[in-house]
Amino acid sequence: MIKVGVAGYGTIGQRLADGVARQEDMELVGVADLAPTLAIRALKEKGMPYDLYLVAGADKEKFDALDIPTAGTFEDLCNKVDIMLDSSPGGIGAKNKEIYERLGVKAVFQGGEKNDVADVFFHGYANFEKGVDKDYLKLTSCNTTGLIRAVDCLDRKYGVERIAITIVRRVADPGDYHRGLTNALQVEQAPSHQAVDLMTIMPHVDATGILVHTPVTHGHFITVIAHGKQKITKEMALEAFKEHDRIRIVRLEDGFLGNASLFKYGRDLGHPRGDLYEIAIWENSIVETGDDIMFGIHIPQESITIPESVDAIRAACGMQKTREEGVAETNKYLGLGSWKK
Amino acid sequence: MIKVGVAGYGTIGQRLADGVARQEDMELVGVADLAPTLAIRALKEKGMPYDLYLVAGADKEKFDALDIPTAGTFEDLCNKVDIMLDSSPGGIGAKNKEIYERLGVKAVFQGGEKNDVADVFFHGYANFEKGVDKDYLKLTSCNTTGLIRAVDCLDRKYGVERIAITIVRRVADPGDYHRGLTNALQVEQAPSHQAVDLMTIMPHVDATGILVHTPVTHGHFITVIAHGKQKITKEMALEAFKEHDRIRIVRLEDGFLGNASLFKYGRDLGHPRGDLYEIAIWENSIVETGDDIMFGIHIPQESITIPESVDAIRAACGMQKTREEGVAETNKYLGLGSWKK
Amino acid sequence: MIKVGVAGYGTIGQRLADGVARQEDMELVGVADLAPTLAIRALKEKGMPYDLYLVAGADKEKFDALDIPTAGTFEDLCNKVDIMLDSSPGGIGAKNKEIYERLGVKAVFQGGEKNDVADVFFHGYANFEKGVDKDYLKLTSCNTTGLIRAVDCLDRKYGVERIAITIVRRVADPGDYHRGLTNALQVEQAPSHQAVDLMTIMPHVDATGILVHTPVTHGHFITVIAHGKQKITKEMALEAFKEHDRIRIVRLEDGFLGNASLFKYGRDLGHPRGDLYEIAIWENSIVETGDDIMFGIHIPQESITIPESVDAIRAACGMQKTREEGVAETNKYLGLGSWKK
Amino acid sequence: MIKVGVAGYGTIGQRLADGVARQEDMELVGVADLAPTLAIRALKEKGMPYDLYLVAGADKEKFDALDIPTAGTFEDLCNKVDIMLDSSPGGIGAKNKEIYERLGVKAVFQGGEKNDVADVFFHGYANFEKGVDKDYLKLTSCNTTGLIRAVDCLDRKYGVERIAITIVRRVADPGDYHRGLTNALQVEQAPSHQAVDLMTIMPHVDATGILVHTPVTHGHFITVIAHGKQKITKEMALEAFKEHDRIRIVRLEDGFLGNASLFKYGRDLGHPRGDLYEIAIWENSIVETGDDIMFGIHIPQESITIPESVDAIRAACGMQKTREEGVAETNKYLGLGSWKK
Repeated sequence: MIKVGVAGYGTIGQRLADGVARQEDMELVGVADLAPTLAIRALKEKGMPYDLYLVAGADKEKFDALDIPTAGTFEDLCNKVDIMLDSSPGGIGAKNKEIYERLGVKAVFQGGEKNDVADVFFHGYANFEKGVDKDYLKLTSCNTTGLIRAVDCLDRKYGVERIAITIVRRVADPGDYHRGLTNALQVEQAPSHQAVDLMTIMPHVDATGILVHTPVTHGHFITVIAHGKQKITKEMALEAFKEHDRIRIVRLEDGFLGNASLFKYGRDLGHPRGDLYEIAIWENSIVETGDDIMFGIHIPQESITIPESVDAIRAACGMQKTREEGVAETNKYLGLGSWKK
Repeated sequence: MIKVGVAGYGTIGQRLADGVARQEDMELVGVADLAPTLAIRALKEKGMPYDLYLVAGADKEKFDALDIPTAGTFEDLCNKVDIMLDSSPGGIGAKNKEIYERLGVKAVFQGGEKNDVADVFFHGYANFEKGVDKDYLKLTSCNTTGLIRAVDCLDRKYGVERIAITIVRRVADPGDYHRGLTNALQVEQAPSHQAVDLMTIMPHVDATGILVHTPVTHGHFITVIAHGKQKITKEMALEAFKEHDRIRIVRLEDGFLGNASLFKYGRDLGHPRGDLYEIAIWENSIVETGDDIMFGIHIPQESITIPESVDAIRAACGMQKTREEGVAETNKYLGLGSWKK
Repeated sequence: MIKVGVAGYGTIGQRLADGVARQEDMELVGVADLAPTLAIRALKEKGMPYDLYLVAGADKEKFDALDIPTAGTFEDLCNKVDIMLDSSPGGIGAKNKEIYERLGVKAVFQGGEKNDVADVFFHGYANFEKGVDKDYLKLTSCNTTGLIRAVDCLDRKYGVERIAITIVRRVADPGDYHRGLTNALQVEQAPSHQAVDLMTIMPHVDATGILVHTPVTHGHFITVIAHGKQKITKEMALEAFKEHDRIRIVRLEDGFLGNASLFKYGRDLGHPRGDLYEIAIWENSIVETGDDIMFGIHIPQESITIPESVDAIRAACGMQKTREEGVAETNKYLGLGSWKK
Repeated sequence: MIKVGVAGYGTIGQRLADGVARQEDMELVGVADLAPTLAIRALKEKGMPYDLYLVAGADKEKFDALDIPTAGTFEDLCNKVDIMLDSSPGGIGAKNKEIYERLGVKAVFQGGEKNDVADVFFHGYANFEKGVDKDYLKLTSCNTTGLIRAVDCLDRKYGVERIAITIVRRVADPGDYHRGLTNALQVEQAPSHQAVDLMTIMPHVDATGILVHTPVTHGHFITVIAHGKQKITKEMALEAFKEHDRIRIVRLEDGFLGNASLFKYGRDLGHPRGDLYEIAIWENSIVETGDDIMFGIHIPQESITIPESVDAIRAACGMQKTREEGVAETNKYLGLGSWKK
């Protein structure tokens, strides 16, 4: 059993812990954080299903005063695991890496760190093999992870040469009070970093795009125009997407009217935190333009990177050596693809 | 075992079903609905933990085409249960009542129906005994249910003569696309119906207030100014609230910054759909004004009425005869109050 | 002097009246409406700069009770003018047309009417000459009007064969309480009607696209990917846009961060109602993708169609016979292009 | 003619300049700012109706590059005026005061500065005489200014002993991208500073209250419960409010449905920037509770303090010596109260 720890128990860290706990060939040793945040208080109220370790600078007395049991220091946690999932605030991961190197622990960093923190900029479906047996991987960010799923899906089946995207970005997560936007669309400098990041992972694809922030919390929406090596028709695109275990095809006439429908659907499914791991593509959005294909994707930003992060553990620890085997194990334990049956 | 059915599997109906399923002295026989909504599709994807019955007008072929199994008609369901929880769209409940009367089934209606549909306008904490062994009860609406909890709590301990409220109402639920409001506060005719409704349940209290709709989805916020029979100090109010199993006292310094923090907290607790059954009162909001006490309440509108609805089953079916016994059983099975330990 | 009336004094009608009033070669005879709306009350408080006529069904007593002077009936207004600008609610314009035909009055309809209400589906820059001396013209809707400005601008200079658009649509106007959306992005069936409409006006261009509604009020945002007859570089696009009197090039570094900046800027300029007549294109948004050019447009939905509506008067009444002469007169009186000096 | 300068040409500063320019017994000498913001660019595009001076640290080359003429330094401006209206960012005013003292210029500070920057914490209606012939006055903030208008109005007529308020605060101004809130209500520590500030100006009134931030931009909404020396009925309150030149009574049935209606109405009136100087009180919101009176106020946050700031000039410069004379002059030039005729 590969032993896993999580650094940073925030929006992503909580979900990484949940996701790892569902992998029957992994053991979640514990999570580490700095302060008794709402997430930690909820962990306590749930009866501490995971052990909690304190990072340097944490005030243990505050945790004691709240009767929140702690299991040791961040280094204690590192010493017990094979690999750390690092979802610390941006920049902290790079500092933590010094500890990982000293203690001989592998690590997977999230999108907030700089690329050079890792040996490989990783995506489970797009370049699994590049991560095999490597020590330090960095995940793509939420939009890029979901986008690559769709583009890689078309690329493997038909070949993709070029994409241009419009990202309608949710500006904050539910529960955020900073980062908000009120009655405004905010435009960013083009090309968006997501397009640039995609090219790092998929260098044979030319990518560019425009990003606009919108005052919503329940998922990003991306329109993609893809230019294939051959003409990709609507039927061809649909066929490819429907085969993918991390893509849901949804329809307006079924009640999926927008991003909030997916958020609601995850809650109605009874998923922990109401999370969805899949991107959704609207069948109603797929149109052909010249020889190109255009479609719209929903990205559930809080949970989308969890499957690929688990893939990263599999790759780095050499649990599986190929993309097909690696993602299949992750999907099995997360129940991905099962909705089709 | 009291057998229970749910009519209308929408936002409230789903949660009623979840709540009843947790009562070990009740059996959830099934739910009834009209069309394969997202909620029904999610029920199917979850593996049909409840049986589904079809109301008149439902097109069974649509369900068959989606491989959604159905267990019979609405009347079939009514014939199998002792009591129906009716969360049909407003006005439908009154029509359903004809069926309930014909088939000799008790029923609990939600706040959307008119008061005269029922024998008793009911609240578990405020007038449990009035509902005992009655056939038709109607619940208070979400804001009124939460408000009465707090006012009844103070009233039983210290006596309350008068309240004036300001309701900062969330205008839509997550997943709604109609009913929305964009960058506007909408004022309603005063006094708000919630104040009027409270007086129906608590006739010895004089109540009035102003309601303003706000473009958010994660919970209402109500400020209450209560005039007691005696002066109620901040300490006295806090003491009373802290004893109540359906009230949480929260603090800004702990991270509970507003309605979205409670929504996040319910998700982090791993509750199904991320729901909370408790109202929250901010300790930081409690201030004295003259001889009156003022405080701010958070109302999680999707799930707040579930405990009192379960209380209503207990009362109507005579499962418990007193308020203390009735709410205690409901609280036990829903885990309410356990967070204090 | 061409005499002009306005039917429907709502969001668009008020602005049509303002725009016509600034044309020194036109006379605004009056406006017609049904009820003492806020817009009419504001007209009264301003001292009735325009005469008000009442449409059939209006209750004159209500106007009298408010001391709002009226100048006659809708037919009275029609009898005094050469042309009506009809901004009645969708569908009413078609009924009004019977009156226009009977009384021999020309008319310009807004985008809410069906295309067959008019002889020509009109855009001042794209097909002015088609409207010359015609009796009934219909304007494009707000998004389409702004979009065509930009596409026609590139098309005339370099040739455009194909576009694919993503419309990030503002869902309501400031002051709307219906039509709102709260914390949701709503997806529409593709292709969007705006793309289809553009092809009606510019049949040599192939157009498609996806529209998503967003909960904001201060302007739409459209990303356009245009495929030219020749490769259009960023420099070429900028050069064309900068020459256009109804397009502003804006930059993030100057403080134009998004749609709300343009709204603010119109107010700071002291324009009546804070309106802007120009679309804005962010220099920072222009990127090349393959041989195509991509850019992002801001559409001030309340006022964008006013210049083209004035163009329509010029065309229908034969005041000018060519596009160049027609738009130049409109621009002169509206001050368009003067900001460049 | 009293000569006036404005420091800081932001949201408030622009409106102060506009307001002073309308006073026929004052001369607006110029405004001072640091950088070529959108507001300054708009001033340029309007043809520089006011002279612009540069504060220390401004880069004149940037203004020159944009052909924006400047008239000198901040000290140059101070040397030409009798009094400065200081709407610099919070804290800068205190530094500017050293310059004012050195150069012997009076000043009026806005609500962002600390109270001790000034000799008097000022409100035109509540304590005009205290400001007469003083050198340094500080205005109340937007919410407090509007609130005091209403409370002072009742107090002078009937006597007010105590108020408790709920402030439903708009979280950002149109055009803001920072400070936003997305789908959240944010609660603040009670009592709100507005209640505390009111007591500084009206020490005979006991005030407290709760503030909640909401994700809207078009005006605050405050509910007030006032306890009078005598019982104040709805009729009595209405009578007092209707006499006040800076209060509008509005009704739902007339189309004033909420804060966005007032914002729209100001635009429809053709006011510069669509601004309103009056607070609005909904007739539909006024209810009696016990011996107290409750009502709801709309506060147009961008422009509400302008009349009282002009009052402050009158007081500090001794232009009028009494409240009645001072506010009457301000109202005359701003057209306040004229809508009643």
